[in-house]
Amino acid sequence: MTDSVKYVLDEGDLPTSWYNIAADLPQPLPPVLHPGTKQPITPDDLAPLFPPALIMQEVSTEREIDIPDVVRDIYRQWRPTPLYRARRLEKALDTPAKLYYKYEGVSPTGSHKPNTAVPQAFYNMDAGIKKLSTETGAGQWGSSLAFAGALLGLEVLVYMVKVSFGHKPYRRAMMQAFGAQCLASPSDTTRSGRAILEKDPDCLGSLGIAISEAVEIAATRDDTMYALGSVLNHVLLHQTVIGIEAMKQLEQAGDDPDVIVGCTGGGSNFAGIAFPFIGEQLRGGRQRKILAVEPAACPTLTRGKLAYDFGDTAHLTPLVKMHTLGSTFVPPGFHAGGLRYHGMAPLVSHVVDLGLVEAVSRHQMGCFEAGVLCARTEGILPAPEANHAVRVAIDEALRCKEEGKSETILFNLCGHGHFDMSAYQAYFNGELEDLHYDEGELAMALAGLPSVTV
Amino acid sequence: MTDSVKYVLDEGDLPTSWYNIAADLPQPLPPVLHPGTKQPITPDDLAPLFPPALIMQEVSTEREIDIPDVVRDIYRQWRPTPLYRARRLEKALDTPAKLYYKYEGVSPTGSHKPNTAVPQAFYNMDAGIKKLSTETGAGQWGSSLAFAGALLGLEVLVYMVKVSFGHKPYRRAMMQAFGAQCLASPSDTTRSGRAILEKDPDCLGSLGIAISEAVEIAATRDDTMYALGSVLNHVLLHQTVIGIEAMKQLEQAGDDPDVIVGCTGGGSNFAGIAFPFIGEQLRGGRQRKILAVEPAACPTLTRGKLAYDFGDTAHLTPLVKMHTLGSTFVPPGFHAGGLRYHGMAPLVSHVVDLGLVEAVSRHQMGCFEAGVLCARTEGILPAPEANHAVRVAIDEALRCKEEGKSETILFNLCGHGHFDMSAYQAYFNGELEDLHYDEGELAMALAGLPSVTV
Repeated sequence: MTDSVKYVLDEGDLPTSWYNIAADLPQPLPPVLHPGTKQPITPDDLAPLFPPALIMQEVSTEREIDIPDVVRDIYRQWRPTPLYRARRLEKALDTPAKLYYKYEGVSPTGSHKPNTAVPQAFYNMDAGIKKLSTETGAGQWGSSLAFAGALLGLEVLVYMVKVSFGHKPYRRAMMQAFGAQCLASPSDTTRSGRAILEKDPDCLGSLGIAISEAVEIAATRDDTMYALGSVLNHVLLHQTVIGIEAMKQLEQAGDDPDVIVGCTGGGSNFAGIAFPFIGEQLRGGRQRKILAVEPAACPTLTRGKLAYDFGDTAHLTPLVKMHTLGSTFVPPGFHAGGLRYHGMAPLVSHVVDLGLVEAVSRHQMGCFEAGVLCARTEGILPAPEANHAVRVAIDEALRCKEEGKSETILFNLCGHGHFDMSAYQAYFNGELEDLHYDEGELAMALAGLPSVTV
Repeated sequence: MTDSVKYVLDEGDLPTSWYNIAADLPQPLPPVLHPGTKQPITPDDLAPLFPPALIMQEVSTEREIDIPDVVRDIYRQWRPTPLYRARRLEKALDTPAKLYYKYEGVSPTGSHKPNTAVPQAFYNMDAGIKKLSTETGAGQWGSSLAFAGALLGLEVLVYMVKVSFGHKPYRRAMMQAFGAQCLASPSDTTRSGRAILEKDPDCLGSLGIAISEAVEIAATRDDTMYALGSVLNHVLLHQTVIGIEAMKQLEQAGDDPDVIVGCTGGGSNFAGIAFPFIGEQLRGGRQRKILAVEPAACPTLTRGKLAYDFGDTAHLTPLVKMHTLGSTFVPPGFHAGGLRYHGMAPLVSHVVDLGLVEAVSRHQMGCFEAGVLCARTEGILPAPEANHAVRVAIDEALRCKEEGKSETILFNLCGHGHFDMSAYQAYFNGELEDLHYDEGELAMALAGLPSVTV
């Protein structure tokens, strides 16, 4: 243990710009379509939802986009985040592989989400906006936007999926602590919410429904804009601070990753760690094995279709080309709420489609097992979402052992599990099992994809 | 916001030794007495409970005690912890005072407790011990020792106060994640536990009872030693890394504190931040205002007696001279479990007695209010215990405003509140109020103090 296991950067090494992968793509992203006309949207179409700066970032093809000083000042509270060499985990696995992980759990809300919550709040504040509406599933995103809103003086309204609103009162209390208002979705505050409650007063909600409500509020109120925690290009852009820092830290460690692993729900933490490395490769750098890990019970990349689909249930969002299970698909209730989304970020879908990234899936029991091993060796208890990345990083390390190879593996530990102890408790009590989606339901959801001819 | 708000140290600045205040005390601590003979104990008396290295630290008068390399390697995972200038909180208070806080919430378990859990586990491992027994109230200490045990290869057995065992299943799950065994106390695994259960099968337990059980297990098993999370000299010693780092960081900031604030339960986080500064004063340095904040509902320093008392209920621990409410005193159920102890560290009691530290108390509602203001300005949600320090730091900043003084205030934000969201939820729901202890009960508990003539 005499070698260093932690690589911190000087504050001066905090990135000054985000990396925009659109600059290096061999083929551009397919256009985003208007939900009504099904024609390519213009920046103007997005103006009711997002401030101009974020719309420009959404469509920009500039490689480097400056991080505003105010954002960097707030980033500094927890960034640069540490990169760790997982020596004790390596030893437990008896692997010749070198394991490194970037740890985003040191942020004020315990995950990578504030990386984009802060710039989104900043650009809205800068444009004179007073209020942001958003949705949240398990609550990571909602509490992160609440945090950013508190620091930058914006009101935040969060539509929280009703089943989580009931099950996760602590995340709600966290949002309240940061001064945000949190409503159970479906609610009677929106047309889309009321329409659903009329049909089914006991509806437990879904991320798709909550997005519909938050978008509707923003679209119909002048002082309110919408904020999304994943999927969109500008969100993924903001997360690239993770990978940019990791690159510098690995250089400091005198190492270079052969394998990079991230978990994927909407795609933002994965893009954050992987895109800067993929960009290097696209500009002629070395090729690496890049793995996107999704839950086997919500297998958007490995079982979904690459097709135009809506991001929400009420079909208020634009149509984007992405890997999707269909907006009506409801995954079973496994314990990684942040990965229970029917779609995938268009940019992540695109790099998978281009063969730059390999998608794999894992069931939850093996992921919890990996998370507990991480806790007992590295002393960090990951969130159930992050366990998917830990699982595959361990699997890769075990492959290296079998093959007698000393590869370098980097994974993103995107958040701690301190808010997910009920899931761990259920795991320890033997109450969990691997869950499977219904093949018939998936087929139906896929058959219901909107028909689009572009 | 262009000035720096965060002061990190280079890894090279991680302290190489702890500071032992015993070296600088104008009067030594009164002797510790054997619970049976009531005569001063010898190091041999402690041998069944602690390894030699910790016993030596308990009685040492050397000023600097080296931190072993293995401990420093593990400290490096989260240390040096950041020191923040609370510019946004200052602005919200409109105070001319400068507020700084040392933030211990970045540790793997979210508080300062691992600072001593790691060296305690190390010295036990080094002495060939295989197992540690301990008690825990709210669970912060139990999960920290579980963490340290996991990393250093020791089994950990935690007696958790039964009422918390029921109310805080997530802390239990955390201990389990780190591989520790957690039992509800009183339990049937010890003589003291069984004796209590016989009289009262529904007994909800107390920290005093849990200590009795953990001490009994250690005293009666050759392979098991005991570990305590606060109160003892060596525990306070280990926590001085906090203050030593803070001193260097304030130097970096070009500042020097006029006021230092910490909350006190057993006394360890307070000692951690304050002792290095008190030591400087004792060696001829400048005098500062040093405030120990305790809950008004468990006012050990402000209403207790400085007297010899037991640390536990079954009277198995040695007798120490400390501020105490009497070992039979049961404080009302306010939401800062880590501060609900009848006694106070002898060293903290001693410096209060010597007039080096001023003790103050605060009720919980004002503390929660302060914590929420901290969250909304600084973006960090403190644990209910830490809120006591935040409250008094704010009060001092408001005093500075009234007096038109630009004093520098340093406080220890000893842990985050991510595991305490049920308390915040109750606060937001209007279900909390200030709680008062029963004066008659306190008088009885004080009347029952053991009679000792030394």
